[in-house]
Amino acid sequence: MANTFGHLFRITTWGESHGGGVGVVVDGCPPRLALTEADIQPELDRRRPGQSKIVSPRKETDTVQILSGTFEGKTLGTPICLWVKNEDARPEAYSEMARKFRPSHADYTYQAKFGIRAWPGGGRTSARETVGRVAGGAIARKLLRERYGVEVLAYVKQVQRIVAKADPQQVQSEAVEANIVRCPDPLAAARMIRLIEKTRRAGDTVGGIVEGVARGVPPGWGEPVFDRLEADLAKAMLSLPASKGFEIGSGFGGILLTGMQHNDPFRARGGKVYTTSNRSGGIQGGISNGETIYFRVAFKPVATVMREQDTVDIEFKNTTLRARGRHDPCVLPRAVPMVEAMTALVLIDHALRHQAQCG
Amino acid sequence: MANTFGHLFRITTWGESHGGGVGVVVDGCPPRLALTEADIQPELDRRRPGQSKIVSPRKETDTVQILSGTFEGKTLGTPICLWVKNEDARPEAYSEMARKFRPSHADYTYQAKFGIRAWPGGGRTSARETVGRVAGGAIARKLLRERYGVEVLAYVKQVQRIVAKADPQQVQSEAVEANIVRCPDPLAAARMIRLIEKTRRAGDTVGGIVEGVARGVPPGWGEPVFDRLEADLAKAMLSLPASKGFEIGSGFGGILLTGMQHNDPFRARGGKVYTTSNRSGGIQGGISNGETIYFRVAFKPVATVMREQDTVDIEFKNTTLRARGRHDPCVLPRAVPMVEAMTALVLIDHALRHQAQCG
Amino acid sequence: MANTFGHLFRITTWGESHGGGVGVVVDGCPPRLALTEADIQPELDRRRPGQSKIVSPRKETDTVQILSGTFEGKTLGTPICLWVKNEDARPEAYSEMARKFRPSHADYTYQAKFGIRAWPGGGRTSARETVGRVAGGAIARKLLRERYGVEVLAYVKQVQRIVAKADPQQVQSEAVEANIVRCPDPLAAARMIRLIEKTRRAGDTVGGIVEGVARGVPPGWGEPVFDRLEADLAKAMLSLPASKGFEIGSGFGGILLTGMQHNDPFRARGGKVYTTSNRSGGIQGGISNGETIYFRVAFKPVATVMREQDTVDIEFKNTTLRARGRHDPCVLPRAVPMVEAMTALVLIDHALRHQAQCG
Amino acid sequence: MANTFGHLFRITTWGESHGGGVGVVVDGCPPRLALTEADIQPELDRRRPGQSKIVSPRKETDTVQILSGTFEGKTLGTPICLWVKNEDARPEAYSEMARKFRPSHADYTYQAKFGIRAWPGGGRTSARETVGRVAGGAIARKLLRERYGVEVLAYVKQVQRIVAKADPQQVQSEAVEANIVRCPDPLAAARMIRLIEKTRRAGDTVGGIVEGVARGVPPGWGEPVFDRLEADLAKAMLSLPASKGFEIGSGFGGILLTGMQHNDPFRARGGKVYTTSNRSGGIQGGISNGETIYFRVAFKPVATVMREQDTVDIEFKNTTLRARGRHDPCVLPRAVPMVEAMTALVLIDHALRHQAQCG
Repeated sequence: MANTFGHLFRITTWGESHGGGVGVVVDGCPPRLALTEADIQPELDRRRPGQSKIVSPRKETDTVQILSGTFEGKTLGTPICLWVKNEDARPEAYSEMARKFRPSHADYTYQAKFGIRAWPGGGRTSARETVGRVAGGAIARKLLRERYGVEVLAYVKQVQRIVAKADPQQVQSEAVEANIVRCPDPLAAARMIRLIEKTRRAGDTVGGIVEGVARGVPPGWGEPVFDRLEADLAKAMLSLPASKGFEIGSGFGGILLTGMQHNDPFRARGGKVYTTSNRSGGIQGGISNGETIYFRVAFKPVATVMREQDTVDIEFKNTTLRARGRHDPCVLPRAVPMVEAMTALVLIDHALRHQAQCG
Repeated sequence: MANTFGHLFRITTWGESHGGGVGVVVDGCPPRLALTEADIQPELDRRRPGQSKIVSPRKETDTVQILSGTFEGKTLGTPICLWVKNEDARPEAYSEMARKFRPSHADYTYQAKFGIRAWPGGGRTSARETVGRVAGGAIARKLLRERYGVEVLAYVKQVQRIVAKADPQQVQSEAVEANIVRCPDPLAAARMIRLIEKTRRAGDTVGGIVEGVARGVPPGWGEPVFDRLEADLAKAMLSLPASKGFEIGSGFGGILLTGMQHNDPFRARGGKVYTTSNRSGGIQGGISNGETIYFRVAFKPVATVMREQDTVDIEFKNTTLRARGRHDPCVLPRAVPMVEAMTALVLIDHALRHQAQCG
Repeated sequence: MANTFGHLFRITTWGESHGGGVGVVVDGCPPRLALTEADIQPELDRRRPGQSKIVSPRKETDTVQILSGTFEGKTLGTPICLWVKNEDARPEAYSEMARKFRPSHADYTYQAKFGIRAWPGGGRTSARETVGRVAGGAIARKLLRERYGVEVLAYVKQVQRIVAKADPQQVQSEAVEANIVRCPDPLAAARMIRLIEKTRRAGDTVGGIVEGVARGVPPGWGEPVFDRLEADLAKAMLSLPASKGFEIGSGFGGILLTGMQHNDPFRARGGKVYTTSNRSGGIQGGISNGETIYFRVAFKPVATVMREQDTVDIEFKNTTLRARGRHDPCVLPRAVPMVEAMTALVLIDHALRHQAQCG
Repeated sequence: MANTFGHLFRITTWGESHGGGVGVVVDGCPPRLALTEADIQPELDRRRPGQSKIVSPRKETDTVQILSGTFEGKTLGTPICLWVKNEDARPEAYSEMARKFRPSHADYTYQAKFGIRAWPGGGRTSARETVGRVAGGAIARKLLRERYGVEVLAYVKQVQRIVAKADPQQVQSEAVEANIVRCPDPLAAARMIRLIEKTRRAGDTVGGIVEGVARGVPPGWGEPVFDRLEADLAKAMLSLPASKGFEIGSGFGGILLTGMQHNDPFRARGGKVYTTSNRSGGIQGGISNGETIYFRVAFKPVATVMREQDTVDIEFKNTTLRARGRHDPCVLPRAVPMVEAMTALVLIDHALRHQAQCG
């Protein structure tokens, strides 16, 4: 198991869907950052189920407690342990899951790997695991904003075939939070919400794309050859549940251009270098170039559908399974704070690494 | 700088385009594997420039030497140092590069990060850096084949708009190596070669997609929550020069399906579990499920074009640059062994990690 | 800050003397190990203050809770979070510490490093920090015993000038636990207890030596050249508060012998190799050789004395300080479970690492 | 195998006694440090055999080559590969070693761990392995001196029962290099040399103590709770061949004092804090306090003696072995540059880590 992320700003997450709770230990946070639960709770509120009619109705208040690492409202430079108690434990709602593997879930692979699994609520494979990431990411985001002037945000760019209009350089957080689907394009947002509601009524699910953005990153962050900034972003995103793809800047679409068309010309003005286009997505050779970083993450439709499906049981007999209980028709609105958290975690780690070698 | 990849089977690469050479130290290789230069050289031959009319004409034989870690033709369990001397050093061919940043290259970002750069041939940012990866990957691939029965391969799936027909479960290495573009679909291959030649004559470049495949991976490899198998693959691929995107299984296309359509039903036969479709790409919850692993990597068109482009010089003055010398119109044929190498490195590391915790 | 120890079996500890508590996240524990709080609590009871008249009277029950990582009494292979709530928080007892640096404590260096410190109770520099280590070590110790047949124990070998007779190959846990100073030589133990009591009455403190032992370690554990088994043990021991030295096998005394006298001759019997002496301390070339591993750790006298001492305040003015409140005249009895825990953590990590590369 | 040391300034060493050579890759070195072979060679000359009549007569010039990582005499921030070719390869001199395990050497444990070993010259277990450490350490030492004003040195403090007079705060490099035993006390040095020569004539060996010193380390370096500065020093020293013990400051002797006697009182002068004694050895709570860091390392007598000894062969039959060929009666003079190198590597890594979190 690998539950630690980052080199200098490191998070270690823990916790299952059922049990004593979920949480995170943040190690390496610089000292003397003002930090209370109030800095973290809003991000958890954006992540939690039950926040709107289009996401999972699981009832958890997800109240965070700082168990260590601060003193008189400031970080000490020691590990910060954040804890969110589990509340809505209804193992009985999952009893069939004890014996049957949900298709396209991790039930079977966990059983194959470990020979044991916490079946209630999916245990560690539940999206609840991301509570720790979002909590840790909230600290990273605050540091980035206050000490480096870097702004991180994400939004829903596409739900199935509905594509939002959004300019990574311009999108504002207020526009993202203006609707429950977290899409800054109000027209697309309305269509997305309708599609998700229709999908939920059908007991089915839809996927889509979240776009992540970082503005104000100075030139120089990123550690070639293996810990290129985009490589660490890709890993961070593909470590999120249900993600299936990552592309930065021009991405897969960029392959339709030639080199002449694709290259971003450099220009200088007032002693500063910039590029007149940004197909590179703000990163060249694995290192930030000072332009806006933007990338897209594909999330498959949630695997839990309210319909009968073929599967096998734990004795490897063929059977069928029909999910009961909570139904999350579209993970995207809740994936937005997850993408932001992971982006912030990657960036702050690289900020510190750059400072260490070249500071 | 971060030049080490892997946790238990680790490679550390080193070397610039010009200077004493390029190489790799492989640490953690199990002992008693038969290994000589003959196991590594063929992979380097597939990676090196000058191997065909459609790739860079740089003349290097790229002859590998094992400096340590073997005895009487077998690995010792100690670090294996592999060295490839540099031969074709013509710094004068690059003299303009000393003063001007090539657009969409890493010249500017290295200068911004380090305040110094080895401009001849691009230094560490040259694709020559991947020699060490391919050499280390050759050892990983041999181990996977001999000790785990796992087969890794990659091929060119798309060049600009030309898409090959290829079934990840069926493609054979012989079909891939049957043509200079390394595309197993002969008709598409012929069209791709024509396109690349035409592009070269125009002094321009094209990009495309390499598909990577791993067959025979048993259920259980992968380390959630952060080192999911697909997360480590994504990082590995995005650490390759010129890569802009990664998708696994259904990838970005999968978002057009609903959950019902996307899920892979489980079935059992003869005490073994399998899925009747494979949109998951062989990985569920970050852990291999025993099906074929397949993914795609987008490579942008090579940035070095033989045409004049806007750029700035090291004094941040606006200027233009027209590349001289060698011209690599399409990186894809040479990217194939790179993708294979990185895939093998990820898989062998996960094989050992799984063995450590659950073996 | 570096609060993670180990590569494959990893602990991350957190918590200050005052605040929400102290704890540990154990990552990499193999699945399906029977584990409840009852496996951990006894070790914490041996570590906690207030257990006898010769240690610190701080009143804490140190009750451990498993927050994650187990299901139905077995480990899941997922991270195990253990939490011990803080109880005896009396910040007022420490108010002078807010303004003055205790001599030979970490108050000054934490302030110098972080520009902030949690002064009540010493914050993270309190020996309370070792709760997480001992809790994590209890799991490691159980794994070593049940899966590898390895027995780890430690005992007080020396208090100031009083040296115990003890044979590392023979000492039994019962003899160690038979008295409050945790010395298996009853005569020496009685003298040690008298010395410690006398020292306490004088408001002073004494140090000494803890000997650590591991029996049943098979040949082959240890990872040269840097993670030699003795190197990792040395680091583990020197990471304990108040430790000033480490020696293995013949240690510092061995330098008085010549090579002829010092070498351990090999002999074979029944297809097994052994040595007829064990000045190597069970490790040769950084790798266990199958003999008993034994080493000694020097602990300085506790820095908190009940007498007036010269020091400076946070404004760098000269002043004096006289500690108030709890007085721990000798850390050694409580250091015994700490040494055992760290030994077990080093060994289980190396067991898994060996299994990964050579298994 | 674990052949990488350090977190931010990392060395990866490689190479066997026989084969293509030995070397090191240094990753994380800050850019723009002036560096040529001339900065490294002198340290290798101090480490190599054959430099005086009292050390191993193996004939190697140990000429270092920089293969990568510099440009026009300056570091690039990219990995620096240093290579020293093997020259004096006389495998026949070791042929008996192919079949017999040398007592108190690593022959048996390597065979037990890996099932294979490079027996000529001891392969990776040869002291020749430390070439890479000393080469990498030379760069670390230069950085410490030029960028941080920190001076690192070591010297022979004791050979068997002969103890040198030396004040860690005062010893000068010139005094250390003034004699072939590298002991700054001329009277003791003369006696040591006589003892070593007598021992060599007897075909035997002697051990002793090297004292390591770092002056000018600012307050704040060290990463509790696990990577305390003394913990990393202890690991570094115990990773050196033949080392058996480590103690810092008052060390094992400090246990004879009471807390009152042992504590280092703080005083302030001119806005700076210092201690009036230094039993802490310059480190408190794992963090440097600005005083001189000093510690001692015990090295056992070299295991290779020119006399017949009991041992077993590779078929686990009892036999005897009498070493032939080169005889190194005392490792201490050559251990001095090794201790310096490892000390410098620990310190520079901590300098960068401190800069990252608290810079």
